[in-house]
This record gives sequence, C-alpha cells and structure tokens, in this order.
Amino acid sequence: MSRFARLSKNGTLVYVELEGDTAHELSHAPWEGGTRIGKEHGWTEDDLRAPVRPGKVLCVGRNYAAHAKELGNEVPKTPLLFLKPSSSVIGSGEAIVLPVESTRVEHEAELAVVIGKTAKNIRAEDAFAHVFGYTCGGDITARDLQRSDGQWSRAKGFDTFCPLGPWIETKLDPSAISIRCAVNDQARQDGNTRDMVFQLPELIATMSRAMTLEPGDVLLTGTPEGVGPLVAGDVLTITIEGIGTLKCRVEPSQSSA
Amino acid sequence: MSRFARLSKNGTLVYVELEGDTAHELSHAPWEGGTRIGKEHGWTEDDLRAPVRPGKVLCVGRNYAAHAKELGNEVPKTPLLFLKPSSSVIGSGEAIVLPVESTRVEHEAELAVVIGKTAKNIRAEDAFAHVFGYTCGGDITARDLQRSDGQWSRAKGFDTFCPLGPWIETKLDPSAISIRCAVNDQARQDGNTRDMVFQLPELIATMSRAMTLEPGDVLLTGTPEGVGPLVAGDVLTITIEGIGTLKCRVEPSQSSA
Repeated sequence: MSRFARLSKNGTLVYVELEGDTAHELSHAPWEGGTRIGKEHGWTEDDLRAPVRPGKVLCVGRNYAAHAKELGNEVPKTPLLFLKPSSSVIGSGEAIVLPVESTRVEHEAELAVVIGKTAKNIRAEDAFAHVFGYTCGGDITARDLQRSDGQWSRAKGFDTFCPLGPWIETKLDPSAISIRCAVNDQARQDGNTRDMVFQLPELIATMSRAMTLEPGDVLLTGTPEGVGPLVAGDVLTITIEGIGTLKCRVEPSQSSA
Repeated sequence: MSRFARLSKNGTLVYVELEGDTAHELSHAPWEGGTRIGKEHGWTEDDLRAPVRPGKVLCVGRNYAAHAKELGNEVPKTPLLFLKPSSSVIGSGEAIVLPVESTRVEHEAELAVVIGKTAKNIRAEDAFAHVFGYTCGGDITARDLQRSDGQWSRAKGFDTFCPLGPWIETKLDPSAISIRCAVNDQARQDGNTRDMVFQLPELIATMSRAMTLEPGDVLLTGTPEGVGPLVAGDVLTITIEGIGTLKCRVEPSQSSA
C-alpha cells in the first residue's frame, strides 16, 4: 500500500506520503518527482485537502450502460469526453455548495485516475505505465442546467463540483473494484469498475489521442447507475474498494450576486 | 502601452515586460505579483512563447450574431459557456497541428482576456478591475467532430488548438476594436468587439457566477463571422487593434498511434 495526500499544515499545503499515523513530507508533488525531505507530521482527517490540484479534469460520460439507460441515453460508440475546470476541485471534508442557478444537483461517484507521466497518443497496453494512482471522485452535476445548456461545462463546472480524495492510492488493480455512494448513510450507488463500457486501458489511450495528458491531470471514468439529488444538509460519501472514503457535506449557496 | 510576454531564454521560460527592443525579466507572472528583477534581455519574435499558461480557458459560443447565423444557430439568450484544456495552448510562431481524427479544422479569431484578480460572483461594473490584460486568441475547432460529438471538449481541445499571443497588452479599451483573421494573407474574418452579443463586462460577470476566475485564467470571448477551413501549409494570422498579430503555421499530424 502506498498512499499520497496533501495536508494543510500551519496554513500551507504540503504533499505527503502517508504511513499509518505518520505523514512524510515530500519536496514536490510525487508526479513531479517529489521525494521525502526527512520531515514527519502527525495528521488527522481534518488536515486532508484535495490530494491533487489538476491541470485539467478530463471526464467521460455514459461509461456504464445501466447509468446511460437510467437517464434515457444510448451507450456511446466512442467515449464521450468533457472537461471540468480545476477550480471545481475540493477535498474530503470540504463542502459541496449548491449554486442558486440550479434546483437539481446530483451526485455521480467515479473512480478518479491521477496521471503520473505525460501521455500522448499512447496504446492501451501502455496506459497503466502513465498512471500515478487512484482516488475517489465526484462528478457533481446540476442536472437541470446540463439539460438546458446543452454544453455541460457550466452544469458540471461550478466551484466545489469536483470532490477528490481522501488520498491517492498507487498500488491498486482498478479492473474490478466496487464504487459505492451513500447520502446520509443511505446507499445510492453500488457499482463495479468491471462494468465500464470502455475499460481503463482503452479509455486512457483514447483520452491521450484527444489531448496530451500531463502529470497531475485527473481523469474521471464515469459513474454507475443510481445517481440522485443532493440537498442542503446532506452528507455525501463515496467509497471505492482499496482506496477509502471521500466525505463531503452539502451546503446552500451564500451567493448574493 | 504596457506589454507583457513570456520568452524562451537559454531553454527556460521567463515572464518579461517588453519596452521596445528590451525585455525586462520579472520574478513571477505579473498576475501573481511578479516585478522586475533588474535583468534585461534582447528579444526577437522567435523568442516569444504563449504569454500565459492558463489554469483554465473559459470560452463563450455564438457571441456575435452574424457568426451564429453563418453556422445556422440561434443567438443564445444567456452566454453559452465551454472549456478548452490548458494543454491546447501554443504561442505565436508555433504550429497548429491538424489531428488525424478530423477532416475539417476551422479558425475562429477571438479577443482573449487574461484574468488578473480572483473573480467570483462579481458585478458587471466591477469586471474590468479583475482583468490583467488582453491578447489575440484562436478557438481552433474540428468542425466535423464538434457536430458529431455533441460535447465540444474534444473538437476544441486538441493540442495546439488554442493559440495565444504574441503578448498581453494591459492598457487597452476593448469595447470597440477590430478583430481580423487572414489565411495566407487573404482576409477571412473582419469583425469588431462592439458587435458582441454579450459585452465584456456582462460576459465576465456571468462567467464569474459559473465558476471562480483565477489569476492567469484566459477567457475567449467569441468569434465574428467568416470562420473557415485550415489546411496543412496555411499560415494563420489573427490581428487585434491595439494588441498586435498572432501568427501560426498549420501542419499535418505526425501521429502514428
């Protein structure tokens, strides 16, 4: 097991490798060659921040057949790609804020892939060599705006709409692991990565043909069936086998603009 | 006049302020508080790179009525937002590479806005206080894939599909300036920012409600009519009044994947 995280320590963010209760501080992000600098910290869940600040978040829609069906969509013949902005990223323990523009915000639990090495036009059999690790991800979506806007950038791009965490697990076989999502401890989604329409090696290779994947980029790999609404006061948990649990509360907007 | 650029000097990228033939090196990006460090360089056009590596590139579609019409689209009632990945950015003098997946790549010349201060839920009258400056931008688009994919992220997100440059002009009234585009010196687009459907202050305010705009983010503000194809061997120039000319050659893909 090898776990990497980002902690808030005395007001600054540091990349660390976690070993039980000990966090070994790193010189840089590990996908930029960061190594231990000989400084150790204690840590609690409250110290965790998003384990990565991605250059981009590249996502695939309708990558589980049962989820495509539940929203009345066909299963795509090629991966349906879209982007979320890095400004939408939050970590475990932070709040998902409901925007005033939407009356229907939904959870989508997803396996998130963190890129370790620059990938451009790679082959499927080389995909895993370009992966740094895996974390739990949420593709939070304003479903009403997704439908009315046509383009999904706004509906999926609001601040706080991309929770990632709690940490990055680097030793993991992602080919058949469970993805579960609960709201207030009630099960909502219970899927398995083996049901992806486009399996990870093919998906990563396809994404690398659309645009260069860079170290620290995050790929969201689609959500299984069971998506549903989030309302203020909810607590969302996303649990992926072999990684851990991402937990975010849901808050109303405080916007007055 | 105040011009900021990024130069390649001895293999490293440095932010500079340009004064005639002299480039004053800065400590950081100017929107991160970079100031002159007392080091001067000579420079030529060949030294220029993209003047900014954006955290995100947030764009608006169909923001000139005549352009919406030429592609058979309605003028939107609210700004139609979409994202391009930062991996698609190149500078003046670099090549736009035609992807093998597309048989119809088109130019869209646009005024690009570089954000200087964090903007979240701002009012239109406060928009310009959050702008660092302006540069010439291209929203290069694989028109065939834009239509077939539905979501535009891939069609507009290929590497090299977001030329920016040649430099950032900070002292500019952007409300009524000409945007011209030529291919091999033949005029293709000749518009003016006064014809924007959503003028800059309203557009920036709207974008800041969709997601937080961060220093170094780039906004593409829509293209006037006259979009058309690019083929290998073409030379594209985008000239904006009061800024300068962005020039890129067009090359075939060398992909073999």
